[in-house]
Amino acid sequence: MGKIYVVGIGPGSYEQMTIRTANILESCDVIVGYTVYVDLVKEHFAGKEFLTTPMTREAQRCEMAFEEAVKGKTVAMICSGDAGVYGMAGLMLEIGESYPQIEVEVIPGVTAATGGAGVLGAPLTHDFAVISLSDLLTPWETIEKRLLSAAEADFAIVLYNPSSKKRHDYLQKACDLMLRYKAAETVCGTVVNIGREGEVMQLYTLGELRDTQVDMFTTVFIGNSQTKILNGKMVTPRGYRL
Amino acid sequence: MGKIYVVGIGPGSYEQMTIRTANILESCDVIVGYTVYVDLVKEHFAGKEFLTTPMTREAQRCEMAFEEAVKGKTVAMICSGDAGVYGMAGLMLEIGESYPQIEVEVIPGVTAATGGAGVLGAPLTHDFAVISLSDLLTPWETIEKRLLSAAEADFAIVLYNPSSKKRHDYLQKACDLMLRYKAAETVCGTVVNIGREGEVMQLYTLGELRDTQVDMFTTVFIGNSQTKILNGKMVTPRGYRL
Repeated sequence: MGKIYVVGIGPGSYEQMTIRTANILESCDVIVGYTVYVDLVKEHFAGKEFLTTPMTREAQRCEMAFEEAVKGKTVAMICSGDAGVYGMAGLMLEIGESYPQIEVEVIPGVTAATGGAGVLGAPLTHDFAVISLSDLLTPWETIEKRLLSAAEADFAIVLYNPSSKKRHDYLQKACDLMLRYKAAETVCGTVVNIGREGEVMQLYTLGELRDTQVDMFTTVFIGNSQTKILNGKMVTPRGYRL
Repeated sequence: MGKIYVVGIGPGSYEQMTIRTANILESCDVIVGYTVYVDLVKEHFAGKEFLTTPMTREAQRCEMAFEEAVKGKTVAMICSGDAGVYGMAGLMLEIGESYPQIEVEVIPGVTAATGGAGVLGAPLTHDFAVISLSDLLTPWETIEKRLLSAAEADFAIVLYNPSSKKRHDYLQKACDLMLRYKAAETVCGTVVNIGREGEVMQLYTLGELRDTQVDMFTTVFIGNSQTKILNGKMVTPRGYRL
């Protein structure tokens, strides 16, 4: 009987994957994933069998992985970042209910929150909240409540999926909600294409971020009340008395 | 002039570090860190120069790293998990203000939130908050407010530093606060020694977790209202309609 590893490949570059992930991709029979992510790893694991489905075909992609495992193959289902953060780990375990004989193991990776934080400096050294602005699978009211609560309790906040063609004004809406509790001067940062070609970081105040357009390859960081800019980097102190 | 990499080595095992981290530890001149973490990597990077300080000597450890860099060395300052999540990245950038000539780069790693999530299944597939229960550097009132806000907005919650000798009842206090908004049946999980020898995962309800003693090597996961147990794993659905 086969086995499935649900694997986070990290932000994008080969070097940002863990050694365990690389070993699994090296030793598995077939690599399954969204076309774009498979393309990111293909050159490093030549000769493997690759199976892809386009975006929005997530459930189909999971079934595909289980069908390969049923044939006795060792399968790696790859996700960008960490497979358990807005990734396929949850859905794989849900669909796995129909395949109780197949073992599923989730292998962690570097998610955009920590990958992007490293590029900006150290914005997440204290408590933080991770929120996706995509309302495709979540009611906007839930997102709104989480933005308000996290802002009120002075969390640093990381926003995934801050924008898309249909949601071009969602970051603005999110900033307006956070501005009810966070100062307009709050230090913010964005990172585009974390760990990939074209990586760009940029610092803003929350007031400026509100009027900024970002794309779907951007991860957005909003500081807490203590976050500051040091030497061009975004730093949230943990509180060591220097 | 030297350079400093602030490096997250992941939860503990060599395999859970990224390829980039391994390359940096391989090529640097000196590895600086808390004694316990240096011991975790020592065998894999034999022949390096190692400098250690005990716990609570964080600022001294940072100064030590900068002094080595001033001598022209390439320095890796290592942290467990991710260097930017309750790690040394923030403090290094703060102390770096006094060493503007030394470049500091933060290299991300797998933090306990995602490392432990993989062991439990997929508890963080939707929005989540990361909160440390240590009040050594943070007023307890701030921690309390964050616990209440995150619970009220139905975040999944990860607790770092849930316990210590002096804080043996903090997890109970935290659970009581979260129980104001989260049901006693909320699915929870703990992971001890993530990715290391002696790794143990355990599932609870929030009501049960309240009466459980954990140690300082434990990371605690509290589900949101949708979190369920599937096949012995903790799963927070993202919301795909199956």
